[in-house]
Amino acid sequence: MTKYEYILRQFSKTNKKNYENYVVTRIWHRLDSLDYKFVTQQYVLRANGKYALTDMYFPQCKIHIEVDESHHQFNVTNDKIRENDIVNITGHEIIRVDVTKGVEDINLQIEKIIEMIREKRVHMKDEFVAWEPNLEVSTATYIEKGYIDRKDNVAFKRESDAINCFGVNYKGWQRGGAKHPREEGVHIWFPKLYKNGLWDNSITDDEEIIYEKSMEDSKVDSHIDEIITYRDKKRIVFARVKDSLGEVMYRFMGEYHLNIYETKAQRRLVWERKKTRVRTYACNLPETT
Amino acid sequence: MTKYEYILRQFSKTNKKNYENYVVTRIWHRLDSLDYKFVTQQYVLRANGKYALTDMYFPQCKIHIEVDESHHQFNVTNDKIRENDIVNITGHEIIRVDVTKGVEDINLQIEKIIEMIREKRVHMKDEFVAWEPNLEVSTATYIEKGYIDRKDNVAFKRESDAINCFGVNYKGWQRGGAKHPREEGVHIWFPKLYKNGLWDNSITDDEEIIYEKSMEDSKVDSHIDEIITYRDKKRIVFARVKDSLGEVMYRFMGEYHLNIYETKAQRRLVWERKKTRVRTYACNLPETT
Repeated sequence: MTKYEYILRQFSKTNKKNYENYVVTRIWHRLDSLDYKFVTQQYVLRANGKYALTDMYFPQCKIHIEVDESHHQFNVTNDKIRENDIVNITGHEIIRVDVTKGVEDINLQIEKIIEMIREKRVHMKDEFVAWEPNLEVSTATYIEKGYIDRKDNVAFKRESDAINCFGVNYKGWQRGGAKHPREEGVHIWFPKLYKNGLWDNSITDDEEIIYEKSMEDSKVDSHIDEIITYRDKKRIVFARVKDSLGEVMYRFMGEYHLNIYETKAQRRLVWERKKTRVRTYACNLPETT
Repeated sequence: MTKYEYILRQFSKTNKKNYENYVVTRIWHRLDSLDYKFVTQQYVLRANGKYALTDMYFPQCKIHIEVDESHHQFNVTNDKIRENDIVNITGHEIIRVDVTKGVEDINLQIEKIIEMIREKRVHMKDEFVAWEPNLEVSTATYIEKGYIDRKDNVAFKRESDAINCFGVNYKGWQRGGAKHPREEGVHIWFPKLYKNGLWDNSITDDEEIIYEKSMEDSKVDSHIDEIITYRDKKRIVFARVKDSLGEVMYRFMGEYHLNIYETKAQRRLVWERKKTRVRTYACNLPETT
């Protein structure tokens, strides 16, 4: 997708929301730089543990814009929210635009926001990486970096992009998981972290614990037994979510270890986060399919 | 309606048209001046006599913007078009934006357009009147000017706004017509210039001739007789049309005189334009209802 197509699709999400469309298009056109990525209607997890949508989000600067017009009502279930890409808003900046005081006032507020965004970029120095649609999901970036960190909000377009961070070079891979190519006893996992088909999965709001359980009661115990007896007890987790345009992506959550005691006590698999940063590995092998 | 509400409503017309929405919002936000009025999806009459829509129209500068993405298809009848406000594009400037070459290229084209709009304003000097939503439909403006000219694209929100340009001060008036308060033998007429209910009206593309006829064949001759025998043979015409937001307005077309010979020959009233500018009159009387 080109930047242009991306921008048009983000704008189009504000179609029926006249105030948002005005604010979002104005910020974008006045900022006037293709170095900034933005997302409209970004799902966020607030510090109070509640979910919300922000109207415009600049991921590089971690700045959110909210159009103060009326409250965003949420009548969706947590599972529904979990299907979407969620950004943990802790440490992010939220700027509100009051759209009740006329166009001159709104325009003035927006000029200030643009100044803030530009200042933030200056402050970030080398940490600010210009928007590059192809680079941002690139495996090579994270191999070169030497690690993937939860703080960087890493998300890949394909399972293979994630797996290839760990020392292989698969072309295609779409199986829900894979053995870690380099680390013994570690599995790479691409779960849906909400109720889906066969699985009753969930994650706590602080992301520290993942629960996994079969939806079929007759299979719950055998599944638990199998994992405890035969399978890897460490999982590097990339949650399968939908980005703001509805495309599937795999968001890095961390490395989780099975708590066997709690698993037995609760009769569901209890995965606890032990690392928010994992090592990446270059591949010395030719491309494999 | 405030400028802000007006802008939002104009933007919202480009909702489902992503390219248009991008171009229109960008031109507006980059131009960054509330002195300019603009209209999206303006019906226009081209020099070749065909009707079209332009994507963005700056009435003060007579500049139209067309987003070159695919041809605007027209499957509407002339009558349907006639319900809408139509601007005669002759002498106007049309600027095309090629949206096929990527966002940098589009942005560059738009910067040039903005320069052109600003230059046009400089060229116009005092003729450029800053956008003033309340002023532009004001009777007082045209009384002070001393005339109404077709070239100025004058349109009023109410019949009374039009009638009051001729020496009275009515508060409300909604009767389709009125005697000219100051000029003997002249009628002020607010017709729909398309087939509607009782009347089969039309106007030629060059606006020079208006045809008027009853839809009921049994009444055609008696209506013609009545006009020829008893009524004013001169009419100042304000066509009833809908503006780009669907609101009714009355657009000044000129002064038309009845051609009795053609009327009899064609068995329909044939009104020929004799003036494109008419005199206005101040009112010396107190307000009348």
